[in-house]
Parts: sequence; structure tokens; C-alpha cells
Amino acid sequence: MNIRSNPQQTVPAVTTGPLPSSRKIFASPEAAPDLRVPLREIILSEGAGEPNLPVYDTSGPYTDPSVTIDVNAGLARNRKQWVLERGGVEEYEGRQIKPEDNGNLSTDKAARAFSAYHKPLRGLDGHKITQLEFARAGIVTKEMIYVAARENLGRKQQLERAEAALADGESFGASVPAFITPEFVRDEIARGRAIIPSNINHSELEPMIIGRNFLTKINANIGNSAVTSSVEEEVEKMVWAIRWGADTVMDLSTGRNIHTTREWILRNSPVPIGTVPIYQALEKCNGDPVKLTWELYKDTLIEQCEQGVDYFTIHAGVRLQYIHLTASRVTGIVSRGGSIMAKWCLAHHKESFLYTHFDEICDLMRKYDVSFSLGDGLRPGSIADANDRAQFAELETLGELTKIAWDKGCQVMIEGPGHVPMHKIKINMDKQLKECGEAPFYTLGPLTTDIAPGYDHITSGIGAAMIGWFGCAMLCYVTPKEHLGLPDRNDVKTGVITYKIAAHAADLAKGHPAAQLRDDALSRARFEFRWTDQFNLGLDPDTAKSFHDETLPKEAHKVAHFCSMCGPKFCSMKITQDVRDYAATLNDPNSVGMSISGTAEDGMAKMSAKFKEMGESLYLDAEKVKESNRVL
Amino acid sequence: MNIRSNPQQTVPAVTTGPLPSSRKIFASPEAAPDLRVPLREIILSEGAGEPNLPVYDTSGPYTDPSVTIDVNAGLARNRKQWVLERGGVEEYEGRQIKPEDNGNLSTDKAARAFSAYHKPLRGLDGHKITQLEFARAGIVTKEMIYVAARENLGRKQQLERAEAALADGESFGASVPAFITPEFVRDEIARGRAIIPSNINHSELEPMIIGRNFLTKINANIGNSAVTSSVEEEVEKMVWAIRWGADTVMDLSTGRNIHTTREWILRNSPVPIGTVPIYQALEKCNGDPVKLTWELYKDTLIEQCEQGVDYFTIHAGVRLQYIHLTASRVTGIVSRGGSIMAKWCLAHHKESFLYTHFDEICDLMRKYDVSFSLGDGLRPGSIADANDRAQFAELETLGELTKIAWDKGCQVMIEGPGHVPMHKIKINMDKQLKECGEAPFYTLGPLTTDIAPGYDHITSGIGAAMIGWFGCAMLCYVTPKEHLGLPDRNDVKTGVITYKIAAHAADLAKGHPAAQLRDDALSRARFEFRWTDQFNLGLDPDTAKSFHDETLPKEAHKVAHFCSMCGPKFCSMKITQDVRDYAATLNDPNSVGMSISGTAEDGMAKMSAKFKEMGESLYLDAEKVKESNRVL
Repeated sequence: MNIRSNPQQTVPAVTTGPLPSSRKIFASPEAAPDLRVPLREIILSEGAGEPNLPVYDTSGPYTDPSVTIDVNAGLARNRKQWVLERGGVEEYEGRQIKPEDNGNLSTDKAARAFSAYHKPLRGLDGHKITQLEFARAGIVTKEMIYVAARENLGRKQQLERAEAALADGESFGASVPAFITPEFVRDEIARGRAIIPSNINHSELEPMIIGRNFLTKINANIGNSAVTSSVEEEVEKMVWAIRWGADTVMDLSTGRNIHTTREWILRNSPVPIGTVPIYQALEKCNGDPVKLTWELYKDTLIEQCEQGVDYFTIHAGVRLQYIHLTASRVTGIVSRGGSIMAKWCLAHHKESFLYTHFDEICDLMRKYDVSFSLGDGLRPGSIADANDRAQFAELETLGELTKIAWDKGCQVMIEGPGHVPMHKIKINMDKQLKECGEAPFYTLGPLTTDIAPGYDHITSGIGAAMIGWFGCAMLCYVTPKEHLGLPDRNDVKTGVITYKIAAHAADLAKGHPAAQLRDDALSRARFEFRWTDQFNLGLDPDTAKSFHDETLPKEAHKVAHFCSMCGPKFCSMKITQDVRDYAATLNDPNSVGMSISGTAEDGMAKMSAKFKEMGESLYLDAEKVKESNRVL
Repeated sequence: MNIRSNPQQTVPAVTTGPLPSSRKIFASPEAAPDLRVPLREIILSEGAGEPNLPVYDTSGPYTDPSVTIDVNAGLARNRKQWVLERGGVEEYEGRQIKPEDNGNLSTDKAARAFSAYHKPLRGLDGHKITQLEFARAGIVTKEMIYVAARENLGRKQQLERAEAALADGESFGASVPAFITPEFVRDEIARGRAIIPSNINHSELEPMIIGRNFLTKINANIGNSAVTSSVEEEVEKMVWAIRWGADTVMDLSTGRNIHTTREWILRNSPVPIGTVPIYQALEKCNGDPVKLTWELYKDTLIEQCEQGVDYFTIHAGVRLQYIHLTASRVTGIVSRGGSIMAKWCLAHHKESFLYTHFDEICDLMRKYDVSFSLGDGLRPGSIADANDRAQFAELETLGELTKIAWDKGCQVMIEGPGHVPMHKIKINMDKQLKECGEAPFYTLGPLTTDIAPGYDHITSGIGAAMIGWFGCAMLCYVTPKEHLGLPDRNDVKTGVITYKIAAHAADLAKGHPAAQLRDDALSRARFEFRWTDQFNLGLDPDTAKSFHDETLPKEAHKVAHFCSMCGPKFCSMKITQDVRDYAATLNDPNSVGMSISGTAEDGMAKMSAKFKEMGESLYLDAEKVKESNRVL
């Protein structure tokens, strides 16, 4: 891996190059052979005796050595053609960028603007624009074909196994199919049960799908605050997060240079970008929530729609009448967006303008196919406040708003908590499915205890795995710095890996077809002492290798038939290989091995003799074990 | 915290000193006021407006500044008197230490022997010796009184709350009482549902209890292998592990100096020590499982009984007839003890001597009150092998052996897996409860996916939290180095903290009385910007503080009413404080605040005016918020 730096220090340096022993491959879906759907193929060691493993790939062109990365120019804008092809949109002169969009910074303090300005597209009246509208009309878009191919990953070759995995799992009423067709994608979107966040102006996008009948996704939050970090750091954080598996990225920047930071991120992002527009709106009125207006907010929405943001967090469920419900909480309102709106409602003693103008917001977002991520402004910030009346009252309103947005043709997902003890997670999930008509749930954690600041990736990873299993479609990561500071690059990686674990554990438990292929490949590598394959099949090959190297650094140890836990003489996996020999004798009709009841003393003596005879070399060699794995 | 080093480099240097802002306090149980049951009191900042928080304390005298730690002499042997008082034991000349006990090392290579030799005690025929025997006879021992006081921790002052917590939780049929009496402890032990691992020769012990109706416990594994580490490192690892919360420690040493390492650990350990005696027995026959004999194994048991080991992992359920069931597995047999016994069974084609001599093993262990930890030698080593016939066949045999051991008067717990996907965890737990008559379950993880080497504390922390919730009594930690290398000091700490999180999350979900007190105290500190209290109430104050310091290092920031996530202007917790003001007006009969339906325009205008009037200073001061917390 390389860090591409640029002589001009103002252009972000980002991490490029493939992951260890991996190469980018592309699937060509039958329905649209011109599409190139990226996968990562993990190349196993010579003589592994099994095929390389394709895995889902979120990393974009950054891991493709055949692509020249130029952050200054942004990624290729291939998807624009898809949008133009289906028509119903117009290119127009977008809103002028105003000084207030970047916090009224003087020129010398402003970050360098992105190199190019792309005129925005928007939907024309009377035409279908959103994926939801196409789906309802029975039309399969290129985005739908693309995500179907992306999700199928190894399933086609494993259809029989996929059925078995589904039968073995427990999905709590989900409808995961053995094989995903573009038509299945279309139907799930039409039903509101899945979304493809894909602003028509985010032409750099590699589309992905969020829904409980698809692979569980994860989101990484990045963004500077008034206190720390720069444009450069945020772009690299995005590239770094998707390298390790983030399916979407939210830019939660506050403070200055907010428009420019977002532009750099969007023009270089192959994954959907989400934002919370109220943060920028608040910056535009100098941080005073009381001064927020619908006009100012609407102008901010247009600004971000034109830039290509794929989903907006909108806290329209924080209604005036719910605010007093938080007064008796241990931690009150902990959502930034929620607290801003609560303060506005209180100061004016009026219903939230997000709620009263919800129809207009829908009409606007529909024109660009920006998806709703209906924010949980009243989510619990502590175990004590979990599943309380404030939280559930808001959730009921989000259900009501979901139906309005659907009627308007908009794609919708719903945000969830937060802090929830284990025994209240399923109650929360079930209520979301019921109130919101199975619109995808997108939760932050939840954290299952409050007592471990510094380890909240773990307190929340537990809750995330569980809610993913129960039906949550996307898990928003929590980093070790949560509650303590802004995540740096290492924290982003730790957060992403932790959440990949949670999402994958959820997929396994649901019986997701093909999910277990990777576990099995890694376990075989582990059992056969293919150390390098074990590292490379893992979520973080670099860390696995470095941990192994701490005790057994030599290259020879990468093929050693032992590890530092037990040492060379004393290895359970080696001993197991004898057991296989033994079992083989049981299938031999000339063998006495079937008399394993422990009573036939004579049979035992013969077996013992036989074992000694064949067991002169105590361990089978690796080839035989591999052979045995292949047969099984 | 200090590292006490010694001029003689052969004496282990260990970490001493209290945790940040903590002091050791002692409870004196009514039933035995001479007992001093240790607790850690977390001292809150001045003006916190709430009492200091007592928490369970596993760290022993090492965190008590009033005790002079001399690793060379070992800890005070207070418990010997308890054992002698109740009689039925004799002191005798123990087994001579043999060169083979330490791997036949020449004198110059041998680690320094521990300073003192204590003659062992053993039970006399016809007398009650074990906690189980006393419990069945209706006798409450000092150990029972001690653990009752230790478990109650804050419950007495919170009885009403305890009932509410129990009602709110979901314990899947456990019988957690609101308040723990010594008689409840006795009854649970008599029932076989809990154990106090407490070899009569481990006089340094601070007793603790393991059972599903008590707080969920965690174990940390330490131990050198033929490849790495020394006696000194292992003693410090033990002290380090209990500092962060390990309830028991297993010494899994293999290789040389195995007897001496264990002696240093035991003489300095206030927590129960567990071992796997077959490891040492194997060392005595140069690592060749085929040469193991019952006599050699029995001699090793006696050696370790006399030293004071509190529980033995014994893989007596690995029966000859089950071994072929592992042949079709992806990862065969992954338990070291299991694979050793499997190899022995195959080589001799005989039933395991652990199974055929199980009665004798019981009689021996009973004399010292060593508890059984019936090993799961056939546990799954991969997701693919979870809950298979081999695993469950062994579990059924462990159930049969549990009843034999109980009949003999021995305390028993059962070891469990391993690698299990989320949807199979509860099935596993339920089967253990059924087969083993609710004897405490003690599981390694389980890991919920195989794909993250380097992060298996997390893959397994998820499973551990869940199985703890479902009824598992003790969780054996997994460190980040699992599958890759031996844990160092940092790995031990990460493993322990991760498992404290899992155990606490489980206690919360079960509705354990008083568990949530710590979450609530920390959440209040967080909400009130008492940064230092937030750090100190957490499981790892050092890490929390250092994370905070990375972005806001100044001392003044420790009292700042903002954090680096949002910066000074933009804080949801501050805004929430306004909400409290608003809510207060709702309770004011002169207020118009009750008209919150959003229709009474006139009422709204008045409320708005009122808010502006009283809201001149936008944020309440911290005192008012604290006051409001106290009232709620």
C-alpha cells in the first residue's frame, strides 16, 4: 500500500494499492454486461488446494493498480451516463456557492476549492426519478442490476449450499433469497424494504443496497469539528474507511470549510455519502439554533442535493410535544440534530419546521433521489433512558413520516439508537419494523453498557451484531474515541473492522447464503497451518501478520506446523490429523474399527496394533489433510 | 501505580497501587464481623452531588497501599485458620518435589524456588471437607458469608431498586434474588448451581462464587509455553489481570519450570487458580501422549492439590467412541487436552483413563476441595463445527460425570465452546443447563465468526455477552492474540476489559440488582461534564483519560462543558439543559405550558415569551442539572 502524496500540499494524499494478496476483479451481470461490478479476490497460497475467495469490495478504484488516482480530478463519473440514459432529468446552472457555505472564511483561510465544477442534474416534473419510482413502475435500473451482482458474491456457484445455510439460520421473519436477481432488488425497493442511496449527482458512485434481506452494511462517520482536523485528513479518512470495508460514509463536519470539505469527499467517493444538513444550516446562523429558519434550511438542502449527497439525516420526528418527555432522563437529548431542533422548538414554542415542511422536503429530495435517513433525535444516550416514551414516541412519528415520503416517491431508512441493554434490543427492532413498515433500520451500535469509555467500539459491537441479526440493515460504527474525542485514522480502522465483525456475525446467524464461505476458508487455512492464507482471509491481514510476527518473526514460521501458543511439540491441530487416519479405518470393511463400543477387548487390541503400524510417523503431512478437507 | 522491583532480578516485579481515584474499603458481614470483605470505592469529584460508588474488587492486596507487598514471601495466609477451625483436616508431609515436575532442568537453568514450603492439608476420612458437603449439611461456611457480602455490593441500600431491576430484566429462568444472604449462597451450592473454587491449601484466597444467580465472572488465561516467557512475567500477568478485573486465573503453562511457576503464582494469588493437569503430566513423559499413564496423571493431581490449585480442567468426556465423530470436521479437535486424550485413546485403543478412573479422581479432589472444571475437549474450533454431534455427545457425558462428582461431594462446573454463531448460542446454553443439572457453565467466548484473527477478543466478546445473558456463569477471556501468539501484558488487559464489558452487559440484561448503578453514575457524570468522574467510573480510567487528552490535553478541559466531538458552541448535552427548564414550567400551575398540542397559538406565543425571559443565560449551570438528577 502507498500513500500518494502530491507536491502541492493542499491536495489530499490518500492510501492506494491492493490489500495483501488481493486483486480487483469484475463481474459482468447478464442483464447488463457492460457494467463492471467490482469484487476483491483473495489469492490463496500455491498448493492451498482450493479456489481463491471473492469477497465484497467497498474500496473503489483506490485498490485497483490499473487506475491512476488523482484526487485533484476526482473519480471517473461513469454513472452520469446511466442517469442521462433513462431521461427525465435536466442539467442546469446550480445554486451559486456563497461565502456562508464555508463559514464566511476570508480567502486566505479557506481550503482550496475542488478543481472542477460539474453542473447539477435534477428531475423534471412528471418523470420518474427515484429508484423507488422506477421499481414501482416495474422498471429494473442499472443500479438494481449492479447491486444484485454485487450481493450475489459466490452464491451462484453454491446454490445448494445457500439453501442449506438459509435453512440452518434464524432470520426472524426476513425473506433472504438463495439467489438475488435484479427483479428481487426491484421488488424489495418497491416495497420500501430496501434502498439504493444514489443521488443523481453522485456520478462517482458504485451503487450498493441497504435492506434486511441483503448483506448487513456498515457506515463510518468522519468529519472535522470546530476543534480539530482538516480537509486533507477527512478525504483520507474516507478512503481509509472504505479500504477496510465501510459501505457508506457520513460526513459530519461542522465548523468552517464545510462545503469545500464535502465537495472533495464526494468527488472522490465511490460509496454513498450521508450528511446531517442541519449542521451546516446551523453554521450559517453562527451556531444559534434559535435563528434557524425553514428558508435557510431549504437553501442548504438544495446546496447539498446539487453536490450529490446520497442521504440526509433529517430529525423531523423531534416534535414539540415530545420534548418534555426527555426532561426526566439521565442524559436528556444526546443527538446533536435532535437537540438543535428541540431548542428551536422551545425558543419559538412552535412545531419543528422539519415536521411542518416535510412535504416540501420530500418534493425537493425526490428531484435528486436523495434518500431519507429519518433521524432519531430523541435516541437514548444511556442505558437508563433506553426504550423510553420519548424514544418510542419519536419512532411512531418516523413511521408516519415514512409513509408520507413513500407516497412522494422518496427512498427512506430510519435511524436508531444509541444505548440499549441487550434484553431491550429486539423489542426496539421489532417496534421499528412494525411502525415503519419494514423500512431499513440504521442504528448507532447500540451500546450495551455505559461503563467502558475508551472501549465503546466493543460495548456497541455487541449490540450491533445482535440488532443486525434481528433485522437491522445498516450498522453505524462507533470508534474507541466515542464520548472522548474525534477519531483519528487508527480509530476509524478499529471502528470499521469491529463493525465488519458485527455485520458478518449477523449475516452468519441469519443464515445468509455464502456468508460462511469465508469463515470456512479461513478455518481450513488455520487448520492446515497455511499461516499466510489465514492472515489474508481475515478482515485485517496486516494486524494478524504483525501479531504472529511478534513471537515467531521468521519467514520459515509462516509455513510452520505449529504456533507460539503451544510450541512445536504440543499442538492439538496436529494431533487431530491422527484422528482422521483413524476415522478412515472405520470405513475400511476389513477394519475392526467399528467395534468402538469399548467392550470388545479383542477388537481394541487389533485396532491398537493397526494404529501403531500405520502411525509410525505421528503426523499426517499437510497434503493428506488438505485432501481430506476437499473430500468433506 | 508502581512497578515494585526487587534488587534480586529473580523475584517478580508486580504492579501495585490503587486505581485512579479509588480506595480499598472493607465490608464486615453481620454473620462474621471479623471477616474483611474487600471492595473498591471510586471517589467522585468534589461537588459531584452523589455518593462515591463501591464496586466489586478482584485486585487483592496489590491495590491496598496499607499492605506491604513482598512477592518473595507471598500473600498473607489468612484462610488457613478458617479451614483449621472447622476441622476434619490433617497437616502432613506432602509429596516430594521431583526433578520431572520442572522438566528435569539442571540447577542452573531452573527458576528460583519459592521462598517457603508450606505443609499441605488434606481431608480426613469421614469428615466434611468441600463447600458442597458443608452446604448439603446445612452449614454456612466463612467462604459463603464472604462471597455473599462481596456479591451484595450496594444492594442493601437499594432494595427497592433491586426489585425493579429484576422485574425489568430477562434472565431466562435464573433465580437471582434481590438480596444475597449466606443461606442463599449455601442453598445454591447444595443444589450444585454454584461453586466456590477454594482448595483448602490455597490459604491466600479471597473467596468468590461462580453461578448463574450471581454476578457473571470472567477468567484470564496466563502461562508460558515452550517458546516464550518466564516465571517473572507470568506472576506479573496474574497481578495485572486481577487489577483489571479477572475473577479467576488459569495457569496454562507448558514447558519447563512448570511447578515453580505455579508455586509463585499460587502464593501470590488472591483469586482462584485453575490448571489443566494433563499439560504437566504430558511434560513428564516428554510430550508423548501415548506414554501417559493413570499413575503419572494421578501423581500430578496430588502434586497440584497440595500446592493449592482451586480447580482442575479434566477432559474426562473425551471418550474413545466419540473421537471418530470429529473426523469430518473442518477443524477437528482444537482443545489441547482433548487432542492429547484423543491421541492416547487411539494409540491404545482404550477408553480414556480419565473416564475409567473418574471415581478415584473425585475421591482425590474431594480431599482438598478442588473443584472440577469438566473440560470440553471436543469443542468446535470453527463456525462450521459448532453444536455438532461430537460436541453434544461429550456434553451429555459431562452431564453424567457431573452427577457422579456431586455424589462424591465435589464441586463442579462445565467448560464450553469455542466457536458458535449467534443463533446457536442459546441452544448450546440450554442444552448445558439441561444435561448438567444447572451446574455452572464456563465458556471460552464463544467466537461468533472466524474471519477476524487479531480481533478475536471482539468476535468472542459478542458471544460471551450473549451466553452470559442466557445463563453462563463464567466467561473465559480471549485476547487479540488468539490463534496468532501468546498474549503479552497489553493483550491481557485488553482481554480482561473486553470480558468485563461482556459480563457486565450480561448482568444488565439479566436485570441483576445494582448492576446498573455504575452505568447510571457514569452517565450522570458524562451528562454533567464531570470528565474526571467519567474516566474514573469506567473500566479503564487510564485509557479514557489518555484518549480525551489526545485532543483536549489541558487540565482546564477536564472541567470544560464541551468535548472535542462538537466543540464549545455545539453541544447536545448543553442544549438539553434548556429542556429541563421548559419541563419545569409544565409543572407550574401558572404556566401555559400544558397547551403543547400545537394548536393554541396564543398559548405558544406566551410560552415563547416566557422561555425568552427566563432563558437569558442560555444554559443552566451545572449545579442546577445535578440537582435535577438527584430529584429524578
